[in-house]
Amino acid sequence: MTYRMGRRDLLNMLSVGGAAMLASRAPAAEEQISGKVGRGRPPAVAHGLCLNEDNSHFYFNPEGHGFDAEAVDAWVDQYAHTQVRELMLCPNAMRTSYGSKVWTPIWKGLDPQAGPNQPLLASLPPEQRPGAWQFVYNAWKLDHDGIDVYQRWINRARKWGISPWISMRMNDVHCVYDEHHYFHSDFWRQNPQFRRVSYRFSPWTDRAFDYGHPEVRKYHMALVRELAERYDFDGLELDWMRFGFHFRPGHEAEGVGLLTEFTAEVRDILNGWQKKRGHRIRLGARVPSRPQTAVGLGMDAATWAQRGLVDMLVITPFWATIETDMPVELWKNLLRGTNVTLAAGLEVLARPYHDFRIQNNSLETVRGAAATLLDRGADRIYLFNYMGYAGIMSDFEDYAALLREAGNPDTLAGKPRRHMITYPDTWAPGEPRTQQLPAQCVPKEWNAFRVPTGPRAASGRAVARLGIQGAADAKAWEVRVNGEVCSFAGMVKPDHCRPDDPMFEFLVPPPTLNRGYNLIEVLPQAEAKIVWVEMAVDSGASPA
Amino acid sequence: MTYRMGRRDLLNMLSVGGAAMLASRAPAAEEQISGKVGRGRPPAVAHGLCLNEDNSHFYFNPEGHGFDAEAVDAWVDQYAHTQVRELMLCPNAMRTSYGSKVWTPIWKGLDPQAGPNQPLLASLPPEQRPGAWQFVYNAWKLDHDGIDVYQRWINRARKWGISPWISMRMNDVHCVYDEHHYFHSDFWRQNPQFRRVSYRFSPWTDRAFDYGHPEVRKYHMALVRELAERYDFDGLELDWMRFGFHFRPGHEAEGVGLLTEFTAEVRDILNGWQKKRGHRIRLGARVPSRPQTAVGLGMDAATWAQRGLVDMLVITPFWATIETDMPVELWKNLLRGTNVTLAAGLEVLARPYHDFRIQNNSLETVRGAAATLLDRGADRIYLFNYMGYAGIMSDFEDYAALLREAGNPDTLAGKPRRHMITYPDTWAPGEPRTQQLPAQCVPKEWNAFRVPTGPRAASGRAVARLGIQGAADAKAWEVRVNGEVCSFAGMVKPDHCRPDDPMFEFLVPPPTLNRGYNLIEVLPQAEAKIVWVEMAVDSGASPA
Repeated sequence: MTYRMGRRDLLNMLSVGGAAMLASRAPAAEEQISGKVGRGRPPAVAHGLCLNEDNSHFYFNPEGHGFDAEAVDAWVDQYAHTQVRELMLCPNAMRTSYGSKVWTPIWKGLDPQAGPNQPLLASLPPEQRPGAWQFVYNAWKLDHDGIDVYQRWINRARKWGISPWISMRMNDVHCVYDEHHYFHSDFWRQNPQFRRVSYRFSPWTDRAFDYGHPEVRKYHMALVRELAERYDFDGLELDWMRFGFHFRPGHEAEGVGLLTEFTAEVRDILNGWQKKRGHRIRLGARVPSRPQTAVGLGMDAATWAQRGLVDMLVITPFWATIETDMPVELWKNLLRGTNVTLAAGLEVLARPYHDFRIQNNSLETVRGAAATLLDRGADRIYLFNYMGYAGIMSDFEDYAALLREAGNPDTLAGKPRRHMITYPDTWAPGEPRTQQLPAQCVPKEWNAFRVPTGPRAASGRAVARLGIQGAADAKAWEVRVNGEVCSFAGMVKPDHCRPDDPMFEFLVPPPTLNRGYNLIEVLPQAEAKIVWVEMAVDSGASPA
Repeated sequence: MTYRMGRRDLLNMLSVGGAAMLASRAPAAEEQISGKVGRGRPPAVAHGLCLNEDNSHFYFNPEGHGFDAEAVDAWVDQYAHTQVRELMLCPNAMRTSYGSKVWTPIWKGLDPQAGPNQPLLASLPPEQRPGAWQFVYNAWKLDHDGIDVYQRWINRARKWGISPWISMRMNDVHCVYDEHHYFHSDFWRQNPQFRRVSYRFSPWTDRAFDYGHPEVRKYHMALVRELAERYDFDGLELDWMRFGFHFRPGHEAEGVGLLTEFTAEVRDILNGWQKKRGHRIRLGARVPSRPQTAVGLGMDAATWAQRGLVDMLVITPFWATIETDMPVELWKNLLRGTNVTLAAGLEVLARPYHDFRIQNNSLETVRGAAATLLDRGADRIYLFNYMGYAGIMSDFEDYAALLREAGNPDTLAGKPRRHMITYPDTWAPGEPRTQQLPAQCVPKEWNAFRVPTGPRAASGRAVARLGIQGAADAKAWEVRVNGEVCSFAGMVKPDHCRPDDPMFEFLVPPPTLNRGYNLIEVLPQAEAKIVWVEMAVDSGASPA
């Protein structure tokens, strides 16, 4: 869900000029492209981007487009001639953004004649009502005008040679602190007995559905059936990472069989439809970044792949940060012998540890994550919450660059990129967690940090950067990369994506840098706290 | 290496009466057994124990046996008619315990006429010299008397239907703080340039050999060749977990290819010998407990298995604690399609976290670990440092029971067992680490711990136990297992293997307990520190 509002001044720039601008570097004739639209063909080239558009961003309309058929189509056009190969279109959270007959549409209860202050939105703080009204009203209006956004997007995507998928959120729990919130479905409101946890309410996920109940599985399968009937998509993605918790705490092992069965049933439904539609219909799933955590939460994704139930897996953190060190090789090993496409999922936030302030990635940190995950074997980079540029990237230019670069090692090669240490934000209940930062420094005791940095630097230039809290002067600290001494090169302060504390930069002797993991060892001379660790590769000249 | 000394009073009990006692529950005629000795046959039954005898325990002689041929044979006899299916006989650390022609024998430099105060042992503190002298002198004496301990053990093991292996330590660094220590080889002393780390000496492993040097690989391959020529074993184990660190920090990725090549070369050598010997010769390896850590340290064990280079993998912690939650399923998944035997390695120590005092397992905690690791799919339980009973188990009865029970789910079923939370003690340089305990308690904030407990309780009885530091009275704390409330059942103080702080016991309602993971959730009412978490299954009546 997105809450970014306004910026109507950019209306034409994105929906018209923006699309042209994004497309400008690959000006193939539309005819040429549309002639190649592959309905279910296997990927012809390696790598690329998947882009997820959530259930609300378009209707909240932060970029300020229109709401007629042309505006709907134009939304797709911004991704034409970029590296986006699959558009993952999400039509639901707890409610649907289209006129569902089996779930609650988002506009149920709306009085289209009334403004933001109406019963449907009464539980919201007054300042949130105008935005909420915009979402609900726009979705209603489009439906009322006979415009099916998702079918239009599917058709338009094919026109540009982009493969259209529907991505169904399997257990969304936005704003469940408020029983009356307009996001919530009738089924959820009326069936508190189907929620995961009854004895507390701490994280939102405590009020997620418990898929241990057959009624819950049936309710969700009904939407799968409706989506498969209503929309002629290339693939259906089951997004188990909104919000990742589907069973009563301690009952995840029973859940493993249930979700595998559920996935097999969805595959059966799609098998039926692909005969009718005359093309292959793929099935995908978004799951936690580490195989054991996925199983620990009831999602035995490796088994789904090995049994041939899924065609694509997206491994991903939940939301709190991009996860720069996902074990891609381990997944590839588990997927060996299958044809499953493995996508590495990026989120928009970038934090070295849980208590760090909220901040977004920069283009350079996205490049870093994408470069290393592709180099480790990911077939796709999957962008989640990277919808439009408003509020996500620092500016439009960066968003355009992202869509043209982040999906392929060749377009990333040689460009400045930053590899920061982050942490995994999703764990099974009671599973031991890792978080490497902040690291407490004790004088004369070595610290070690391992940073995956992808391919070797094209320029040979790489620097290790440490963000240090506690007013320590780290210039004279011994810093080694893969055993080699790195000399202090200056203080550095990137424009975007950085700690508030001072960052010290150390020059890595060129032959030292590995493809893959690089080890930064630090011998502190004073008590301090290391709050940030990164390797910047192919960056510009040091300011020292 | 073992430093336990004395207890000569138990001499006959173990080497004669002991063996008889251990064997008493399976009194099959020796003839019947020896007729079935399988030289290289595939395992006929599931499960069982592997037992590792290190390079020094026998010569240090804590149990007080003799040193003639009969005593050597009698050492094997204690494992007859137990669940031990493979004896993993280790003949080396940095030196060999037999008369090697390519490495330094342990007695090189010994004056057999002199006592403990002689030049070879001069670098030791005086109180350590008598024990050291015993090791060196006894090994020398046996060799001098023409007794080859390992060939006798191999022959004797076959007589009992036990498969004899040689387990070679690939990089032992005991006592490298002392360059003159009698443990060290000439090659190590003379080649400091081949050590992993030159810029510091912190853990012992900083002075381990760096297998990045061809000279180091060649030196170790020479011992492989000698062992394969000298001894007619069923299998050779490369023990990479003594001490687990084989490359310069940050150079482990280059190491992956080198160790896979090394393993392939060993396989070739064994292929040559199995033709000459007329039976299959297996190859095994001991590696870190988690696949990613193994790769991160240069040991790509999954690839060795998938390429058919190894027949057995032992996953194991290093030493600091038994690891009760090793990801067996993940390994089994990586090994699918191979015939590799997966052994779960147990160490003798039992600690919930790194700063906890040193203590040994009890029979009940070993049962717990074995029951869950077998239930998760391990083919063997591998005992390391479980040599003889002196100093290891609390008493002889427990050691005998261990050897009769711990290798098979059927013999473990229904016996009291304890499942404690421990931590993984081995990590690649710079790899993020997990350690769940101690857990800081904040009033009214839930803590969660996931405990693997293996098969369901036969009796239905299970209790959750918390060791709590800080004088908190936890009797009224809310404790739930898999969501169900557990009532306080009393204070408990096991005889062996426990925290120094008070342990609170909570009764788990019988239908609640899962096979596999169980989730303990705790709602503290006061600030405190949870230092110990366990589930005790099929335990006796509560003292409450």
